[in-house]
Amino acid sequence: MAPSAIPVETLNHLPLKTVNGKSAAVDDIIIEDVEKTNLVLRTFRSFIVDLCEQFKGGHPGSAMGMAAIGVALWKYIMKYSPENPSFFNRDRFVLSNGHTSIFQYMFLHLTGYKDMTVDQLKTYHSTRTDSLCPGHPEIEHEGIEVTTGPLGQGISNAVGLAMATKHLGAVYNKPGFSLVDNMTWCMIGDACLQEGVALESIQLAGHWKLNNLTVIYDNNQVTCDGSADIANSAEDVNAKMRACGWNVIDILDGNHDVEAIVKALVAARSSKDKPTFVNVRTIIGIGSQVAGDAKAHGAALGPADVAHVKKQNGMNPDEHFVISDEVYAFFRETKSRGRQLEKEWNELVSAYAAEYPELHAEFQMRVKGETEDWMKLIPSKEELPTTPTATRKSAGLVCNPLAAKLPSLMVGTADLSPSVNTAWKDKVDFQNPDFRSACGLNGDYTGRYIHWGIREHAMASISNGLAAFSKGTILPITSTFFMFYIYAAPGIRMGALQHLQTIHIATHDSIGTGEDGPTHQPIALASLYRAMPNLLYIRPCDSEETAGAMIAALNAKNTPSILSLSRQNVPQYPSSSSREGVQRGAYVFVEEPNADVTLIGVGAEMVFAMKTRELLASNHNIRARVVSFPCQRLFEAQPVEYKREVLQYRSNAPRVVVEAYAVNGWERYADAGISMSSFGKSLPGAAAYKYFGFDEESIAPRVLELVEEVRREGVGCLRGEFRDLNGGMK
Amino acid sequence: MAPSAIPVETLNHLPLKTVNGKSAAVDDIIIEDVEKTNLVLRTFRSFIVDLCEQFKGGHPGSAMGMAAIGVALWKYIMKYSPENPSFFNRDRFVLSNGHTSIFQYMFLHLTGYKDMTVDQLKTYHSTRTDSLCPGHPEIEHEGIEVTTGPLGQGISNAVGLAMATKHLGAVYNKPGFSLVDNMTWCMIGDACLQEGVALESIQLAGHWKLNNLTVIYDNNQVTCDGSADIANSAEDVNAKMRACGWNVIDILDGNHDVEAIVKALVAARSSKDKPTFVNVRTIIGIGSQVAGDAKAHGAALGPADVAHVKKQNGMNPDEHFVISDEVYAFFRETKSRGRQLEKEWNELVSAYAAEYPELHAEFQMRVKGETEDWMKLIPSKEELPTTPTATRKSAGLVCNPLAAKLPSLMVGTADLSPSVNTAWKDKVDFQNPDFRSACGLNGDYTGRYIHWGIREHAMASISNGLAAFSKGTILPITSTFFMFYIYAAPGIRMGALQHLQTIHIATHDSIGTGEDGPTHQPIALASLYRAMPNLLYIRPCDSEETAGAMIAALNAKNTPSILSLSRQNVPQYPSSSSREGVQRGAYVFVEEPNADVTLIGVGAEMVFAMKTRELLASNHNIRARVVSFPCQRLFEAQPVEYKREVLQYRSNAPRVVVEAYAVNGWERYADAGISMSSFGKSLPGAAAYKYFGFDEESIAPRVLELVEEVRREGVGCLRGEFRDLNGGMK
Repeated sequence: MAPSAIPVETLNHLPLKTVNGKSAAVDDIIIEDVEKTNLVLRTFRSFIVDLCEQFKGGHPGSAMGMAAIGVALWKYIMKYSPENPSFFNRDRFVLSNGHTSIFQYMFLHLTGYKDMTVDQLKTYHSTRTDSLCPGHPEIEHEGIEVTTGPLGQGISNAVGLAMATKHLGAVYNKPGFSLVDNMTWCMIGDACLQEGVALESIQLAGHWKLNNLTVIYDNNQVTCDGSADIANSAEDVNAKMRACGWNVIDILDGNHDVEAIVKALVAARSSKDKPTFVNVRTIIGIGSQVAGDAKAHGAALGPADVAHVKKQNGMNPDEHFVISDEVYAFFRETKSRGRQLEKEWNELVSAYAAEYPELHAEFQMRVKGETEDWMKLIPSKEELPTTPTATRKSAGLVCNPLAAKLPSLMVGTADLSPSVNTAWKDKVDFQNPDFRSACGLNGDYTGRYIHWGIREHAMASISNGLAAFSKGTILPITSTFFMFYIYAAPGIRMGALQHLQTIHIATHDSIGTGEDGPTHQPIALASLYRAMPNLLYIRPCDSEETAGAMIAALNAKNTPSILSLSRQNVPQYPSSSSREGVQRGAYVFVEEPNADVTLIGVGAEMVFAMKTRELLASNHNIRARVVSFPCQRLFEAQPVEYKREVLQYRSNAPRVVVEAYAVNGWERYADAGISMSSFGKSLPGAAAYKYFGFDEESIAPRVLELVEEVRREGVGCLRGEFRDLNGGMK
Repeated sequence: MAPSAIPVETLNHLPLKTVNGKSAAVDDIIIEDVEKTNLVLRTFRSFIVDLCEQFKGGHPGSAMGMAAIGVALWKYIMKYSPENPSFFNRDRFVLSNGHTSIFQYMFLHLTGYKDMTVDQLKTYHSTRTDSLCPGHPEIEHEGIEVTTGPLGQGISNAVGLAMATKHLGAVYNKPGFSLVDNMTWCMIGDACLQEGVALESIQLAGHWKLNNLTVIYDNNQVTCDGSADIANSAEDVNAKMRACGWNVIDILDGNHDVEAIVKALVAARSSKDKPTFVNVRTIIGIGSQVAGDAKAHGAALGPADVAHVKKQNGMNPDEHFVISDEVYAFFRETKSRGRQLEKEWNELVSAYAAEYPELHAEFQMRVKGETEDWMKLIPSKEELPTTPTATRKSAGLVCNPLAAKLPSLMVGTADLSPSVNTAWKDKVDFQNPDFRSACGLNGDYTGRYIHWGIREHAMASISNGLAAFSKGTILPITSTFFMFYIYAAPGIRMGALQHLQTIHIATHDSIGTGEDGPTHQPIALASLYRAMPNLLYIRPCDSEETAGAMIAALNAKNTPSILSLSRQNVPQYPSSSSREGVQRGAYVFVEEPNADVTLIGVGAEMVFAMKTRELLASNHNIRARVVSFPCQRLFEAQPVEYKREVLQYRSNAPRVVVEAYAVNGWERYADAGISMSSFGKSLPGAAAYKYFGFDEESIAPRVLELVEEVRREGVGCLRGEFRDLNGGMK
């Protein structure tokens, strides 16, 4: 699929036989001074083994094998500016095989990223806490687009980065003004092609025809266990990629043939309507005594083999960490080229400002990651329903006006549009503009509603890529049943780790989801998300709290949020519930002086706390106050005085949490719980609740018993003996 | 790929033009009385809409579309015995699109599964707590092989079931004695072909050449959001399956053409060396006014459309739940056929007993799910290391002798053989016997070491299928880094829900894993597994406790276990640690009369509890006792007296847990914690611990301060105010 003509704008850093100033053919590409690229490869590989040897660790093999790919990318292909790593229209590079991180650190050094000094390179695997060279690339550091390591995540992020370019380009580009048109280049290894999340993302990239995405496969056929064929012998990967809607280009000598790689990547950049898969045969640990073997993967080679590598590469085995001036000179132009790129882009944007002032203003806001005043779009309490309403519906009432108005929101669902209420009137779907669906649902790249298909994991991991494109430019919102966010957990975790703002609309939470049964009823999952650093898991109890949850999520610029919502209708509590209260994580819902007990109501189970309160008062003369507790992490951020006021730690009233989940973690805030100690059951929601003891008739006597025990024995009897009022852990 | 000759043993329930008594060709198959199969289809579809209508819910559309597939399977193809659903050599049927569960319930009824009465069918979506017809199929009920619902799981289970057949057949079958040779038939919908776990499993089935697995694709091109193409337009699914090493057969009219389906399934059964993918075009909700539309998927059709369906099917719209005698008669032979199958198999086994008495004895044990006396294979405390040893190494010392001797163990790894120590000397890999690896690692179907590739999710979900083949026949053991069990979480959850015994060897736990950094350092994941019903998450502190953890996992016949193990060496505590203690979840590690504080040490962080104890004694004159706490769920099962004795709730000594995870959930057992409140950091393990305050120099003063506060203010000051001694939730 090599195109005969290369677009002129891609010519500037290509090694060409002849340039007519307008266009060139892929065949015009020639690297005449092969010795020079070889010197770079030899230097690179020798330096890598030195780096791994110094602290006896790291991953040398693949980084050595990928050297020629790196030279092609950083010297000839990628558009970037070492002096301004966040240049908006830069090409994005993702190292999905993140364990080869020294590969990327080395090229950041060679191309002049200022903080990536030789001294810094040497911190790889050291005890230096200020290292810029962690074991896997981390987004916090210059030149790194996303944190990778857990396999399959990077390629999914890359799909998100490519989507972001397509979307922003479709919205803001105008004839003659190609403001956003960067490429995304993604390295993967054999492992990423086995991980399910990658396979989901590959399907989607083909479906969306992301021709601005190129995946470069470091095909060394070696994994930790040996030859990759021991777990993947039957697959024709090229045929499979083609069947997924991708171009495929083969490179037979990926170890040395920089020219062939450059030609392939140029062709990939010219792809008209498909993402491109470049299948590059390499040798892991090339030049070492363990070349082509799994032993080259994840350990230093040892001094003898390090010397061997140097000799094989024509370097002096007695010298370490050698990079000659000639090698530095080879990459020297990257800085000036980057400056030039930026200059041209800035001029383009200025001209655009004159031609399209309004769009330009919006574009500038997007570039800066500023958001419009969204607070005014959130319905006031008075505008929200007063009759029983499912919080998944409430979330739609709050979120959809935002989605309709705010260009930064990209909202999608893992094939549950009819259930999750995230589709707004007049939404445009994100689709390839040529796509025509059998059911009439089309769209284009300006669309901001994403049909992810039944791919929860890819939804979360690609969304991280959307969010990582440029801080604040895109806010991805995903949706599916809460239970299925267990599929997405590895992606959500990576979002939290990277401080990427995303919002996950998780409906059908708790056993209230009903007939679908235990497979669909989450019990333990909230414990994961409540324990996960830098993640807000928020379970609102009614529409007002749902508005509060959305406000908290929108304010959390460096933190993903999960809004955990009910399938079933829940009562509304306009005189108790408070969006401001949600911001504090927990708050007094119904105060009661001299209370005998504090009932903690959570999300859809608030109704049981409230009804139990009534029953305790009417039948047992017990005074119960009620606390609403939508978010543990927000509560933890409050001052201790506030916490004491809400939970009344020092009173003699026991605190009982009511939630249809495993109680694990609530012991911090409660003395006793009405909770789930087993998986759920296929019954209509109300019947399921009753079956597991979630009704006031069942709860009130248990609370009464607890109160009586405390009256009898003093509140000290509870210390360290959490009471599972409807059965313990099973 | 239609074979010309059908093996004679498959002839008995096929509709054939001519039978020569020895063999027949696929072309000989003919269904002459098409009217009769049509009557069954019409009855089936009309009954389905009645079932969904009665309680206004359920999933009618796909069940209606798949009717002809069901008739082909249950009438003509599958080998099973309705009167003995657990007949060992039965064909296994898996409904991976589990939301169509009424499809299966209907056929269980029609073919005579005794408890599946019309009355039971009518419990679908009812409040009947004794229903055998939950929203998704559940393993507890007769005729259901695995619980499905979360998409992609069933097809993965089916791969495991087919592996089990291959393995058992390879071990026990002899010429003339095909004891285990059943087929696995798996229904999937569009969704399963999008889920990553299914895509991983498809790769593996192709790799292992599981020709005894047939996946039947209900290709109705409709998902909840509309036409499946809105999230999957670019894919050529047949080409993709072929590229994964599968046969592909197309069925163009899957709605009515039972004969074509039967021919395809017969051909699939005859596949020599590949799994088969039968791509069956169907119409969702066929015969209804919403036929072919997403509206037919997940809701009752309403009375008008129910009547319409009946009319379209030539049934009386005023009659409900009608199954004529003719329809019952159509399936009547299934029972006698089943009895005959069993009879022949029992005779075969008896003859085998005479010929191969020893193998037969072992086989009978496997069939009954009995295990050999494994306890004697566990090394005694004296045989275990006394010098610092990583618990991942200890686990190998305990597990590998078991794996070498016990035929029921199938042990595998997600491509981390060099790290997880699960490979034993002279292991044979589970591979297709024709497979020849580039690296020399071959194997055959007798092999019990499984290279899963980098597919953690499929590893867990396929293992559920291995375990579900027949209770106790196969005990799957998986392994990878603990962090990557977050990818496997949906599968592990399904194992716990189904009460399937599996053991997961999770190495490199906590921040001690070191240089790989925060992407590889689990913080929150243990909170998920500790909260998950029916799962043992066990974190042993040394070799003796690792032996105890393995014993607990082996004893848990209805429960999966995760053994959470260190990468790094940890001290051994032969005078304190106790395998018996592990069985109780927690126990006194070092007693101290009149202690000032109880330190709870967990897993690899026990070292910090023990060193802090020493430092408190030597520098601060503080008496600390130490509790080891490897498993919360085992501890919860203990009598309250034991719990009080271990944790001394009623004493004035505060309890401090020391674990490098999020502390969530420990508040039940401790008043304070040294824990992690953020993600980790890429540093060598020891440096990472120190960085986050895990060293006795840092811990002891904090504990001291706590003890002094308690002395000053009384232990009551701790109630309800858990102390995060090295920083709280962030």
